[in-house]
Amino acid sequence: MSRIYFDNVAATRVDDEVLNAMIPFFTQKYAVASSIFSHEDGIVVQEALENARAFILNKLNTKDYKCVFTSSPTESNNLALQGVCFAKKTGNIVISKIENLAIINIAKYLQKRGFEVKYVGVDEKGYVKLDELESLIDENTILVSIQHVNQEIGTLQDIGKIGEICKQKNCLYHADATFSFPFFDIDLSALNVDLLTIGSHTYYGPKGASALIVRNSVEIEPLIIGGYQEYNLRGGMQNIPAIVGMQKAIEIFSKDTFNYIKSLKSYFLEKIQQIPHIRINSPQDLSHPGIANVTFLYIEGESLTLRLNLRGVSVITGSACFSKSLEASHVLLSCGLSHELAHGSIRFSFGKFNTKEEIDKTIEYLKEDVAFLRRLSPLYKED
Amino acid sequence: MSRIYFDNVAATRVDDEVLNAMIPFFTQKYAVASSIFSHEDGIVVQEALENARAFILNKLNTKDYKCVFTSSPTESNNLALQGVCFAKKTGNIVISKIENLAIINIAKYLQKRGFEVKYVGVDEKGYVKLDELESLIDENTILVSIQHVNQEIGTLQDIGKIGEICKQKNCLYHADATFSFPFFDIDLSALNVDLLTIGSHTYYGPKGASALIVRNSVEIEPLIIGGYQEYNLRGGMQNIPAIVGMQKAIEIFSKDTFNYIKSLKSYFLEKIQQIPHIRINSPQDLSHPGIANVTFLYIEGESLTLRLNLRGVSVITGSACFSKSLEASHVLLSCGLSHELAHGSIRFSFGKFNTKEEIDKTIEYLKEDVAFLRRLSPLYKED
Repeated sequence: MSRIYFDNVAATRVDDEVLNAMIPFFTQKYAVASSIFSHEDGIVVQEALENARAFILNKLNTKDYKCVFTSSPTESNNLALQGVCFAKKTGNIVISKIENLAIINIAKYLQKRGFEVKYVGVDEKGYVKLDELESLIDENTILVSIQHVNQEIGTLQDIGKIGEICKQKNCLYHADATFSFPFFDIDLSALNVDLLTIGSHTYYGPKGASALIVRNSVEIEPLIIGGYQEYNLRGGMQNIPAIVGMQKAIEIFSKDTFNYIKSLKSYFLEKIQQIPHIRINSPQDLSHPGIANVTFLYIEGESLTLRLNLRGVSVITGSACFSKSLEASHVLLSCGLSHELAHGSIRFSFGKFNTKEEIDKTIEYLKEDVAFLRRLSPLYKED
Repeated sequence: MSRIYFDNVAATRVDDEVLNAMIPFFTQKYAVASSIFSHEDGIVVQEALENARAFILNKLNTKDYKCVFTSSPTESNNLALQGVCFAKKTGNIVISKIENLAIINIAKYLQKRGFEVKYVGVDEKGYVKLDELESLIDENTILVSIQHVNQEIGTLQDIGKIGEICKQKNCLYHADATFSFPFFDIDLSALNVDLLTIGSHTYYGPKGASALIVRNSVEIEPLIIGGYQEYNLRGGMQNIPAIVGMQKAIEIFSKDTFNYIKSLKSYFLEKIQQIPHIRINSPQDLSHPGIANVTFLYIEGESLTLRLNLRGVSVITGSACFSKSLEASHVLLSCGLSHELAHGSIRFSFGKFNTKEEIDKTIEYLKEDVAFLRRLSPLYKED
């Protein structure tokens, strides 16, 4: 029996069309991307690379930015935060309390290297408190880094307003759009976003390709020193098959895909109401179409995740994606949830390869497993 | 007509067997590698990742090292040099004059960050002068970085002896084995190599996977901060399909492959003698089996490369792989060649998909093109 995979925010299945676009770059167009001083085999690959770069910048509606290809969203986030800080040399940065753990760890690292870090809070649905953000930024603030879509509950921030605040306050703004692009249109000519992280494996593209989009006027220091590649901002062989796959995944991501995923989430949120004592942690509107974060009161997320796993359903609890230990999610705690509520949370994330039948099955499993675990719980008193 | 690709040191065609091993990790085993607290989809991927890691360490005959997966040899080299320097905080490093340009640029970067850099010279075939190395290392030397095989002329350094010198002098030794592994066996239990860079795309594996092998007792600072991945030394989503492909490429690389490539080089070096006024820049023994670097006197490498390219033959001149400009190769200049001789050099690099027929054709083209270009050369007087 095939498993039910509801962990699409962590990584998606690569679309067959994407894989087919990649394959020639393994076995035919495998040379190193190279300049006109080189040979035809390299020039063909260079053209594919520059096409992908131009395609992505066009998709983001800008000609005033560089598209620096990297190996992962985490690398892009490092290049953005370390790159700006080490170029500016001194100052403070502001991040939200619900950033991806990689960003939080980069901020801690920068703190050890002499940069002050300030954390802006969020409301109970994860929306950044804009007045608090405004008051945190001062004349020494060099960078604000606030994600577009949250990885655990799906909250979609208003990056237009955040960008405006940064512009008024004269500091740079980096948005981690790993979980929002290309689900939501990002028009860099209309927004004040100076640096943007985008991934690939979150929307049916391959692992190994990501990008940092950087406004031409913004100075950053490279992390990986090498040759002339990527505007001298990122040395090393580009992963051409993955970059070509990333381009194809963006090309084929459609409004229909978005709507289908959204319909799965709506269906799930309707059906899950059959289970008593739950809390929906994700916002209803202005959020990722496929993320539904739910707390099942009186039980632990870990226990439920393990039972669902044995049933053949893949979901995660807390911040499992980044943690080897069973910590409560820093996102849910920042939204004001108690440790108990945070510990009982599960993230269901739907993708285009999922079906309503899979949701029906999962709801049946949940009914049984939640009831079973609650019977074991000392906190739970049957109605 | 299909082209003749003699640029296998830059990048190789991915073997079909390697690609077939990768494909399930795009469309079936696509989850994020994750711990036992997660779900079966992630655990299966984690197992593949750890299998690859164990396989590589076993191939290098050691259990006392970490295998940190990275995205490219350049990233591994950065992690080695920056990682050691920033962990040690102060001191000097020694590199050879013929390192890959990425290493040379990393060294320049470290120099700007306060570390002294010393350069050890080589003889006319590119072998590092061991007595000079010994005299350059002092009590403040924290790291020596000397490659195993040279990227342009193929010289194979004696990393055993270099390691011994470093051990006696009490400094760490990093060897860039991008162009030597798995062509040559590397037994880390018998060598004194503290850090080792290995790639994948140089031996029929994919781009996007590489590793830095680090002795457990060596402290390094990470470049890419993230979650718990890769022993906390390299954050970000691992490129699992590429890592699985790297493992397969190592598995299937055989002594027969080595010998076949070596036979192509021998055949080429025999045939090339039909052309007068040439200089073989590569060493005959103790060198990469597939690299033949040749200077055609009285003409420029660029002109000949361009003509060969029009014939359908892909080769490079100088350090074209890393440079957008037409600089003379720093490797050949360091070997004592004049600018003229360095400018007239071409690197032919053979791989397992090449044939003797391709070499025959290329020799015919060379005879015509070299004669043609010499007739135009003011330096050349016909015999």
